[in-house]
Amino acid sequence: MLPILDGLRVVEATAFIAAPLGGLTLAQFGADVIRIDPPGGSLDIGRWPLADDGRTSLFWTGLNKGKRSVVIDTAQPEGRELAMALIAAPGEDAGILLTNLPPRGFLSYEDLSALRPDLIQLTLSGDRHGGSQVDYTVNARLGVPLFTGDAQANGLRPVNHVMPAWDVGTGYLAALGILGAERHRRKTGRGQHVKLALQDVGLATLGNLGFIAEAESGRPRQRIGNDLFGAFGGDFACRDGEHLMIVGLTGRQWRGLCKACGLQPAMDALGERLGLDLSQEGARFVARRHIAELVGPWVAARSKAEVTAAFDANGVCWGPYQTVEQLVAQDAECSTANPLFQHIEQPGAGRTLAPGLPLDYSELGRSDARPAARLGQHSEEVLHEVLGLDGAAIGALIDRGLVRTA
Amino acid sequence: MLPILDGLRVVEATAFIAAPLGGLTLAQFGADVIRIDPPGGSLDIGRWPLADDGRTSLFWTGLNKGKRSVVIDTAQPEGRELAMALIAAPGEDAGILLTNLPPRGFLSYEDLSALRPDLIQLTLSGDRHGGSQVDYTVNARLGVPLFTGDAQANGLRPVNHVMPAWDVGTGYLAALGILGAERHRRKTGRGQHVKLALQDVGLATLGNLGFIAEAESGRPRQRIGNDLFGAFGGDFACRDGEHLMIVGLTGRQWRGLCKACGLQPAMDALGERLGLDLSQEGARFVARRHIAELVGPWVAARSKAEVTAAFDANGVCWGPYQTVEQLVAQDAECSTANPLFQHIEQPGAGRTLAPGLPLDYSELGRSDARPAARLGQHSEEVLHEVLGLDGAAIGALIDRGLVRTA
Repeated sequence: MLPILDGLRVVEATAFIAAPLGGLTLAQFGADVIRIDPPGGSLDIGRWPLADDGRTSLFWTGLNKGKRSVVIDTAQPEGRELAMALIAAPGEDAGILLTNLPPRGFLSYEDLSALRPDLIQLTLSGDRHGGSQVDYTVNARLGVPLFTGDAQANGLRPVNHVMPAWDVGTGYLAALGILGAERHRRKTGRGQHVKLALQDVGLATLGNLGFIAEAESGRPRQRIGNDLFGAFGGDFACRDGEHLMIVGLTGRQWRGLCKACGLQPAMDALGERLGLDLSQEGARFVARRHIAELVGPWVAARSKAEVTAAFDANGVCWGPYQTVEQLVAQDAECSTANPLFQHIEQPGAGRTLAPGLPLDYSELGRSDARPAARLGQHSEEVLHEVLGLDGAAIGALIDRGLVRTA
Repeated sequence: MLPILDGLRVVEATAFIAAPLGGLTLAQFGADVIRIDPPGGSLDIGRWPLADDGRTSLFWTGLNKGKRSVVIDTAQPEGRELAMALIAAPGEDAGILLTNLPPRGFLSYEDLSALRPDLIQLTLSGDRHGGSQVDYTVNARLGVPLFTGDAQANGLRPVNHVMPAWDVGTGYLAALGILGAERHRRKTGRGQHVKLALQDVGLATLGNLGFIAEAESGRPRQRIGNDLFGAFGGDFACRDGEHLMIVGLTGRQWRGLCKACGLQPAMDALGERLGLDLSQEGARFVARRHIAELVGPWVAARSKAEVTAAFDANGVCWGPYQTVEQLVAQDAECSTANPLFQHIEQPGAGRTLAPGLPLDYSELGRSDARPAARLGQHSEEVLHEVLGLDGAAIGALIDRGLVRTA
């Protein structure tokens, strides 16, 4: 972990992607992130994919790396009180809660801030009314599935994205939200309740990228298959059947592509024929079918190795289409050759390739990848450290079923 | 803007999505974010979509809201020196640079840190080798387009996502990276060069969500169309042709769905017939076609209003499929009824609905939405404020073409 937030203690009561990713990010920055889970685990403890043991969630372990785990039965009043004492424990670097569970019971900001007025609580919800939404339902509402994919192939059927873009952005924004509140607290001594809705992150992104203003202008985005919007880019097959995503977004990339394929004279002629200045990115988008008719045969006549050698020699922006299997089995970027990754021993899943935080600090280095804890692995040490309970007191809580250990 | 980073000055030399979004986020947190652009603007100044004037980029204005704009001809040695003086100007809350342009010339960390040893520079690149990659090429490499969409409809053709998920996550992570470095500098006095690669953010996400461990296990993700992986969820058409994304991810959502549709007895019978316990999310995924055969006709027999009333009464998680046009024209969430949004007057684009930061602070409130500056709008005031140049000196720089104003 990075020694940036060392000393900071964050309690997390979360499930699924965005909120656990927020906590993961804070842990990778060096915070002591303590999950409080009910016996048996939170809502996502069995979320697929599962490890070979048929029980361990590779999803859950991936999102909870390097956090400590305390299991408390918060359905019992005394468990609820214990959890609240943990969240509201004293210490100027403590008193921070991250949750996406309903903010009531032991997660009630009102009750917690009565115990500790300078509490910082970030509550993530599906929509801003506190309603339940997931990435897929938000994405449908935002309109994205209706301009994803190939109009010819799919008619008007929506195409969902499979990578939960809104969750990922929201997770990092949750970490930012907490850091912002904590900065304010150090300056003023005041805590606060910070609210963040998955759906609002999606809406803000639509606005930031110009989609809302575009729709207001009455010329909304159309389905364009795999093409890049507003410039030239698309997917092409090589002679050996390998597919490449090829992009001529900037002027430099575009000139490089024309040069690599020896197509500059043909592009000049095309521009003249169409009355378009193809050095302008928008003109390349307008002419994209025509450009593809020139680039396509050039790529199709060559192997991937030949094509990409010419591309790399000319600064063309491209990426190989490959499966996740191929990425993991063959691509050095997804291996310990990339310092982003380390092998870890994950209880329940065995040896696995795990990423740290993608930030590389020249002075501080990188975060380590650490395994996720077993549920309740740190119940005893946390209750002792944070609340000062001794072995006998903790033993009594365990005997009464209020606390569980791994 | 939120008064969280007030006083902090960040200089930005960026283009496209991730890096400008990082700067936008810092500006929304209250930092003074100053763009340095070359005459005519950066690489993305004309990026589509365009406003009705055919020139103003709705993309650029969306991502550069609330920043100040200084235009310097950094192709000239004196312009380069001026830009470096601006970046490395004194002040304990200054000396922070965010860039995704090649880190040489006036953006060389080596040269800038010679001027100001405690400089913080975050350099974003496509891949960790400094190579040029965009969201689409990274996404191809990660394998996502090969498990997006409907296998039946598309065969083995990749389906690109249209929402730049990796850019969005990277933008927020860039803001986090800077805040982390700045926290460290306040504690120790030491600055540093922080590197972040778009491709590594994608790879880390694949790892965090379990995709890498899943591929290592030899059971990689298959194409499942619009279904939710690992539980029940999919798209369904109502009697009136409206489509809904319907999700039974948690036990509560699933029981609510069965109750809303009056299908609990049928689901019990189905589970018995298949030998599956449908209260388990994984079993619902295995049985998803069978479940859809029960849910589908129930939805198809009712209007959207009838279906969603029953869903809302029973805590079902759902979202409407709609176009961005419909979202903008009809959905109150995408209007000033949602405090995320305000109307702004954007030079070149007119009145437009613009989002602030999605974080809602109980003590500090929300960030305002502010228009993007015109290129060079703040050249004079920034050179005066930061470098102490007087009107005559600035006039001379303008006369020599080193500085441009709006």
